[in-house]
Amino acid sequence: MADRLIGACVFAQSGGPTAVINASAYGVIKAALAAPEITNVYGAAHGITGILKDVLYDMGQEDAFELELLLNTPSSELGSCRYKIADPNKDDKDYQRILEIFRKYNIRYFFYNGGNDSMDTCNKVSQFLTKSGYECRVIGIPKTIDNDLVGTDHCPGYGSAAKYIATSVAEVCKDTCVYDVGTITVVEIMGRHAGWLAGASALAAISCAPPDLVYLPEVDFDIEQFICDVSRIYGHKNNCLIGVSEGIHYSDGTFVSEAKVSNTDGFGHVQLGGLAATLAGLIKLHTGSKVRGIELSLLQRCGAHLASQTDIDEACLAGKYAVENAVAGESGKMVAFERDPASRSYVCRLLLQPLSIVANAEKKVPRDWINAEGNNVTSEFFDYALPLIQGENKRILDNGLPRFARLKKIPAQ
Amino acid sequence: MADRLIGACVFAQSGGPTAVINASAYGVIKAALAAPEITNVYGAAHGITGILKDVLYDMGQEDAFELELLLNTPSSELGSCRYKIADPNKDDKDYQRILEIFRKYNIRYFFYNGGNDSMDTCNKVSQFLTKSGYECRVIGIPKTIDNDLVGTDHCPGYGSAAKYIATSVAEVCKDTCVYDVGTITVVEIMGRHAGWLAGASALAAISCAPPDLVYLPEVDFDIEQFICDVSRIYGHKNNCLIGVSEGIHYSDGTFVSEAKVSNTDGFGHVQLGGLAATLAGLIKLHTGSKVRGIELSLLQRCGAHLASQTDIDEACLAGKYAVENAVAGESGKMVAFERDPASRSYVCRLLLQPLSIVANAEKKVPRDWINAEGNNVTSEFFDYALPLIQGENKRILDNGLPRFARLKKIPAQ
Repeated sequence: MADRLIGACVFAQSGGPTAVINASAYGVIKAALAAPEITNVYGAAHGITGILKDVLYDMGQEDAFELELLLNTPSSELGSCRYKIADPNKDDKDYQRILEIFRKYNIRYFFYNGGNDSMDTCNKVSQFLTKSGYECRVIGIPKTIDNDLVGTDHCPGYGSAAKYIATSVAEVCKDTCVYDVGTITVVEIMGRHAGWLAGASALAAISCAPPDLVYLPEVDFDIEQFICDVSRIYGHKNNCLIGVSEGIHYSDGTFVSEAKVSNTDGFGHVQLGGLAATLAGLIKLHTGSKVRGIELSLLQRCGAHLASQTDIDEACLAGKYAVENAVAGESGKMVAFERDPASRSYVCRLLLQPLSIVANAEKKVPRDWINAEGNNVTSEFFDYALPLIQGENKRILDNGLPRFARLKKIPAQ
Repeated sequence: MADRLIGACVFAQSGGPTAVINASAYGVIKAALAAPEITNVYGAAHGITGILKDVLYDMGQEDAFELELLLNTPSSELGSCRYKIADPNKDDKDYQRILEIFRKYNIRYFFYNGGNDSMDTCNKVSQFLTKSGYECRVIGIPKTIDNDLVGTDHCPGYGSAAKYIATSVAEVCKDTCVYDVGTITVVEIMGRHAGWLAGASALAAISCAPPDLVYLPEVDFDIEQFICDVSRIYGHKNNCLIGVSEGIHYSDGTFVSEAKVSNTDGFGHVQLGGLAATLAGLIKLHTGSKVRGIELSLLQRCGAHLASQTDIDEACLAGKYAVENAVAGESGKMVAFERDPASRSYVCRLLLQPLSIVANAEKKVPRDWINAEGNNVTSEFFDYALPLIQGENKRILDNGLPRFARLKKIPAQ
């Protein structure tokens, strides 16, 4: 049993927002406010930059009702950042500043909620504080719609984005088959390096016909094969629905979204308007059919109205677990999920993983969860993803629209 | 009281799909199956073209449970068309064919569910049948997310699309203010000639900050003023969210989406990737800020998971009302809604309008529901639109995803 450590805590959100990152915030804040060891609960504005700039809010002064609304409020309520902290061996200015702020507020607990880069930040801060002899317990809380963190079965944020994508693709699938003239539709889905989100488009099969083709960045993209696949399906059924990851790339690593694409006269110009528009234009050129590109854009990461309750519950629990374990003496770890492989139904337990194994690594979709042709996912993917999108959230409405949390954000004294 | 008319009915869906057009189908089918005067209930595949091609389905053979699922199934379950029927005075081939099919199945009731063009078709068919001395009662049922039909307070389909747009814009609003670097976001919304849908983006104000600027096609678009508006707001608050109708046009009538836009060197090329991308590119050029274009695309018209229960109920009721009135002797009319101006709460009654006044006309947002600057809507717009987005739908789920109707579509004998 670790020594009892009395002091304030600070919580910060980092990286791209998700539909449930605020549920983790709620989990942290509620548990921290209840912990006798924690004297003050601060939230940093815009991630680590709020600590560097000394912009902290006193969470203890918020209304309980508003805090609870965080469970269904999308995006990062405290603000986020994409600040890359320096290597402390080369430049420790930021770390010295963090130490200064932590000393100023007697911060003894630091909870950082984010993805790969944020876990790297978390790890560096943790190591620096240890080296400096300043006692502070640091726990990372995973968050990313991309679901690409290692050391955990999945990440809070993924299940809700997957549910949004699967539901939207199912609805689009219904919409694109109403006319008796054929249509080819390309839906562009987030995920720069891992295809977890693009794969979720296949789950639309539960509602209606699944996308005919799904392309993930785990498999090199072959534009000739793509046109061949689309033409074959369109020729056969007079319709084709395609889910595609923004991160698909050629075998030389060039992103398709950034590459020149071949057109009738050889190689054309870089297209504007995103990957979906580029691919749609290309298909139109080759098939002459009616085409449409749809980019799910920010909608897929902020669609809290479709957040999975499983995801909300787990995100909240991850925050609570971080606080409880920090109080119990843990530090330098990230909260992770482990699925029980023996259970027929979905059972997940929480555990801690060393930050060092999580930082800067990426977890991809296993190659054998993608079919041999590399243009769809297999049943293993369904078994993995379906439990994560279960449960309808119980959001509160005001005049037919979501009632989001309204925090007072009173500056820390 | 009209004579009792015994015979079959046919129902068809036309024009762009909506989240609730199938709710009207359910209203028609259920009421028609229950009407003693109606011997058979047929659904035509792909609107009027299904009648022309003799592809009718026997709705009497569908399972009651699956039919009820139509209440929450987006898109046109029987298929749609965009077929423009000829002027019968010039070419009556299609009309003769319709008469032939109606005689074949003894069809005495025709229900057509669509927008302006469809009401025109409906009107022409009704007049031709009357002139031919073939007794058949024809009723139009309104449907369009665009909400631009005259003779009715609003159209089924609008409320659900408006709720989708307002909710999505509220969520995007939360997402685009998380970083402390500013962002300008342009959300492109459907509505070629009327701004009812673009105006709905302003309703996001109920949840959080509303869009800073909203542009409707009712006001001529001035690109210089637009850049001036955006720059001013961005300079002031370091952020700007813009809702814009796809139908905005310059004073000469040219759609902005199709026009060349000015850039640094005078006039540049037509941009690819839609209006949102075009405007985002233009803003980037003038402000240098981070910009993002989001096109709500098909999602806004097929987003049944966010359909307003008010809209679903009214769409279903419109179908039922059409059948009941046809059986009672009405013909050549469209079902319409009339709001009680004296009631403080939202009260709407159904009535019938002559098809002739509805066909091919367009109802626009009143100019005085748009502010003087032409860059946002007023409180009158809120009073009008808010009642239409009320009520959360009670959709059925399967494995966390929508359970859509699965019809057998058994061909009519």
